[in-house]
Amino acid sequence: MSFKLSNYFPVLSWGRAYKGGTFVNDGIAAIIVTIMLIPQSLAYALLAGLPPQVGLYASILPLVAYAIFGTSRTLAVGPVAVISLMTAVAAGKLAAQGTPEYLAVAILLALISGIMLTVMGLLKLGFIANFLSHPVISGFITASGLLIAVSQLKHILGVDASGHNILEMGQSLISKLPETSTPTLTIGIIATLFLFWVRKGLKPLLMKLGLSERLAGIGTKIGPVIAVVISILSVHFLGLANQGVKIVGDIPKGLPPLTVPEFDLELWRSLLASSLIIAIIGFVESISVAQTLAAKRRQRIDPDQELIGLGTANIAGAFSGGYPVTGGFARSAVNFDAGAETPAAGAFTAIGIALATLFLTPLLYFLPIATLAATIIVAVLSLVDIASIKQAWAYSKADFAAMMVTIFITLILGVEAGVMSGVIISIAMFLYKSSRPHFAVVGQVRDTDHFRNVERHNVITSPRLLTLRIDESLYFANARFMEDAIYDLALDKPQIEHVVLMCSAVNDIDLSALESLEAINERLMTANIKFHLSEVKGPVMDKLKRSHLLHNLTGEVFLSQIDAIKKTVGNAHGAQIEYHL
Amino acid sequence: MSFKLSNYFPVLSWGRAYKGGTFVNDGIAAIIVTIMLIPQSLAYALLAGLPPQVGLYASILPLVAYAIFGTSRTLAVGPVAVISLMTAVAAGKLAAQGTPEYLAVAILLALISGIMLTVMGLLKLGFIANFLSHPVISGFITASGLLIAVSQLKHILGVDASGHNILEMGQSLISKLPETSTPTLTIGIIATLFLFWVRKGLKPLLMKLGLSERLAGIGTKIGPVIAVVISILSVHFLGLANQGVKIVGDIPKGLPPLTVPEFDLELWRSLLASSLIIAIIGFVESISVAQTLAAKRRQRIDPDQELIGLGTANIAGAFSGGYPVTGGFARSAVNFDAGAETPAAGAFTAIGIALATLFLTPLLYFLPIATLAATIIVAVLSLVDIASIKQAWAYSKADFAAMMVTIFITLILGVEAGVMSGVIISIAMFLYKSSRPHFAVVGQVRDTDHFRNVERHNVITSPRLLTLRIDESLYFANARFMEDAIYDLALDKPQIEHVVLMCSAVNDIDLSALESLEAINERLMTANIKFHLSEVKGPVMDKLKRSHLLHNLTGEVFLSQIDAIKKTVGNAHGAQIEYHL
Repeated sequence: MSFKLSNYFPVLSWGRAYKGGTFVNDGIAAIIVTIMLIPQSLAYALLAGLPPQVGLYASILPLVAYAIFGTSRTLAVGPVAVISLMTAVAAGKLAAQGTPEYLAVAILLALISGIMLTVMGLLKLGFIANFLSHPVISGFITASGLLIAVSQLKHILGVDASGHNILEMGQSLISKLPETSTPTLTIGIIATLFLFWVRKGLKPLLMKLGLSERLAGIGTKIGPVIAVVISILSVHFLGLANQGVKIVGDIPKGLPPLTVPEFDLELWRSLLASSLIIAIIGFVESISVAQTLAAKRRQRIDPDQELIGLGTANIAGAFSGGYPVTGGFARSAVNFDAGAETPAAGAFTAIGIALATLFLTPLLYFLPIATLAATIIVAVLSLVDIASIKQAWAYSKADFAAMMVTIFITLILGVEAGVMSGVIISIAMFLYKSSRPHFAVVGQVRDTDHFRNVERHNVITSPRLLTLRIDESLYFANARFMEDAIYDLALDKPQIEHVVLMCSAVNDIDLSALESLEAINERLMTANIKFHLSEVKGPVMDKLKRSHLLHNLTGEVFLSQIDAIKKTVGNAHGAQIEYHL
Repeated sequence: MSFKLSNYFPVLSWGRAYKGGTFVNDGIAAIIVTIMLIPQSLAYALLAGLPPQVGLYASILPLVAYAIFGTSRTLAVGPVAVISLMTAVAAGKLAAQGTPEYLAVAILLALISGIMLTVMGLLKLGFIANFLSHPVISGFITASGLLIAVSQLKHILGVDASGHNILEMGQSLISKLPETSTPTLTIGIIATLFLFWVRKGLKPLLMKLGLSERLAGIGTKIGPVIAVVISILSVHFLGLANQGVKIVGDIPKGLPPLTVPEFDLELWRSLLASSLIIAIIGFVESISVAQTLAAKRRQRIDPDQELIGLGTANIAGAFSGGYPVTGGFARSAVNFDAGAETPAAGAFTAIGIALATLFLTPLLYFLPIATLAATIIVAVLSLVDIASIKQAWAYSKADFAAMMVTIFITLILGVEAGVMSGVIISIAMFLYKSSRPHFAVVGQVRDTDHFRNVERHNVITSPRLLTLRIDESLYFANARFMEDAIYDLALDKPQIEHVVLMCSAVNDIDLSALESLEAINERLMTANIKFHLSEVKGPVMDKLKRSHLLHNLTGEVFLSQIDAIKKTVGNAHGAQIEYHL
């Protein structure tokens, strides 16, 4: 592929054809997303343990960067629940919430994971995300949703609880129950019930009132704003702030400050692992949203360029006081449904949020924390995906096991341990499976040149010849297995004079497997058995020609299996003896 | 497989049939191995930074344990070079050489790695060793040989040098050159040259003197003993110990003490990683020696039981003041050549070494350290395997790269980092390859039911039908790749009405790949393309029946590809249009 600037700056492609009609559509979508994003940004900043304005800051420049570098037409980036939780976990290891150091670490996490994403994109490493299997992702998201919901209960109760896993949190909450603030709890419960009703009941209501399904769907997304407005008014006019209801309070007015993240080598090093996990989880979440939406309009997403888009978004966030962001499902779906046509909608949303930070923040003074916690709880409980757990159980016990391990480790040891163990389990199961490849002893289908598994077909074999077909490339991980399989089948069977390894499914033979083939050849030679290969693919044969194997081989390399039969034991038809393992 | 006690106690099998003739052969082999093992044990203890008697202790009970639990008839276990170096590295992180703490850590390493090996054996995890690819092992052994040789130069020069990698060692040696002890250097050089001559020149000489090739070969293995005796006599009679030549000095007389390793949770935890690496490297080294020798006599090695054999050997070592051991190549070959028939030879060797610790140690008082260093240097330089490097370069650049990375990281960052990065690189390369499986667009071979790659064969295709054959099981790692391949080939080609995925080489479809198939089905549906499967294997079909895929599939599942052709586009012969990518 030749270098094309527009590959790296997708804005050059869609920007050139930008028209007035598109502008109107993008603008309308941006207004709706802005309204939705304000309470979300505040809530997720709270979840990340950061001052509320940081959530707003993270929703300005990152959106502009993504609009320039991202390939999705409709993805809306910003703070999301899971990444906010992971930020809290990573930053909490190095500093206490509420301190300037904590904020500095959160900003640094955005910078480092942004750099990692960008570099991975430039190196075309988008495929790395494929190693997070679906059951692991699904289990991780489910467990994170539960973890987040439980972590917010303290705000609903109005108590100071703590804990790093679901057990500690539960214990701490129960011990603090007597300190519950009744007005806070009242606000929390009403807001939660209201938001649940918005999810289930508002859409049918709006449709009854004559709105189209699309508009009614968008309307429900504005539910949190209604909750925010009503609870601000209640707190203000009922004077609840003096009765123990915690409120957002003063939010610094104005655009995000230009920040230069700290450069402290030791600090950077201690954040590398957390940043990588945040980067990869963020990317996986974002790309699946982007691909789902792109498929609906038959657009394409370039994973490597998406890495650059998300990476630059995070870097931009870090330089403007924000914390790690990624593409969120709910807001992207709203953006899509509201008719956004190009990434410009994201840039317009950024303008909307910037205006909000300039003018709206004083109005949020009386916003109760309990309302924000309620919006988080209602949002994350939809992440809990029981259907996927059931599906995994029905479909594959191995996938189910990987999912359950991820869920339990995430709940009990935390998000980083959860996702790491999920990846390790997936890869270990994969390696284990491919270390014992499928293989079959094959025989000739009567009157044809076809060869099939002796265990499943009625085929002809000769007692003097053993033909083994290995259905996988030969690698270090399965080389020893192949050796053992051949020894088990061929040694101590005095009739056998020839062993043919049928390589029709072998796309590569690495050095370890080559050495195993040499060992097999030598060992069969001491047993007076000739070792042959058949149906070796062209590229594999080219490689073998550069080794000593062909020179030392006691047998031959046959172009086809039927040749192998003819030139070793004559025509197998003559023998007509069924071979059984 | 039913439980058989003799599977876990191989001694029960060979012990029952033990005869007088076997006893004589085993006894002779044991005497020869004992003579060879005494200087080796002292030298490797020196390399491990331990008192010389610890090397002897490690050559007594471990041999008895292996004789009971091991499956190799001729493997000789005991201290070996690479494991001694790894012990020095691991123990050096926690204590200073010469302190009781250092010895305690070395003993604990034997215990923990012994427990790990035994547990892995009981869990049948022998296959784990397969994930160390041959180039990685070979590179690691080569680099370790170089590292060890350089680390012993200080003893040849008679100076105090230090360093954790080859650069530091070299620097330290050069700066200490002025302090070189001339008598030490003289002994060191003479011993080294003598031992090299023994390797190359003694065997032809002995054969000229009328010995058989086998006996001459065994004779050369006793060379180190000659060097030891001559240098002891020289130091004693020339009074070199007073002229700065470091000697072994007092070795405590008597059988190894029964030791109870320390149980300190923190200490154990900090040794887990090092113990695991020592366990796995030791196992890989040992099993390849065992298998090479077993193949010569057409015996079989059971890898899982070997884990138990080595594991119990190390546990036995830990309780008798020893440090980590494994099967060594040189001594096992001598044992084999000297005619050992059963593991009893190992037990007899243990008796020999026990007698040596009882009666021989005072004679070793004047043994110069430089001579031991010379035996180490000459032994480990044979580990440096340039031929394998050349072979890897010729055969596969990927394998060569893995090997070189392992060599350089081992030399520069040390043995643990070297072997870890080797494993990671091997697995990463393997995952990368299998994440982009081989696939082919296939067409029908004229007048047959065969289907072949359109790029390599002259086949018939229809512009209305795209048939893709994927030559690998479908997993999370390659699911996205398959999606992309299908979209690239099928979308935006308005003639295509049917896509058939030919699954003849697909042995499994995991949940991630299932979800990708569902996504493909849905996406092709929006493009009015029907999605079919063909030649799905029985077990895969059983799994698919438990999913929603078959229910939602826009197309059908065809038993054979020819059926797929007939039922989608009629007979492809009618179209006779060559299809090109």
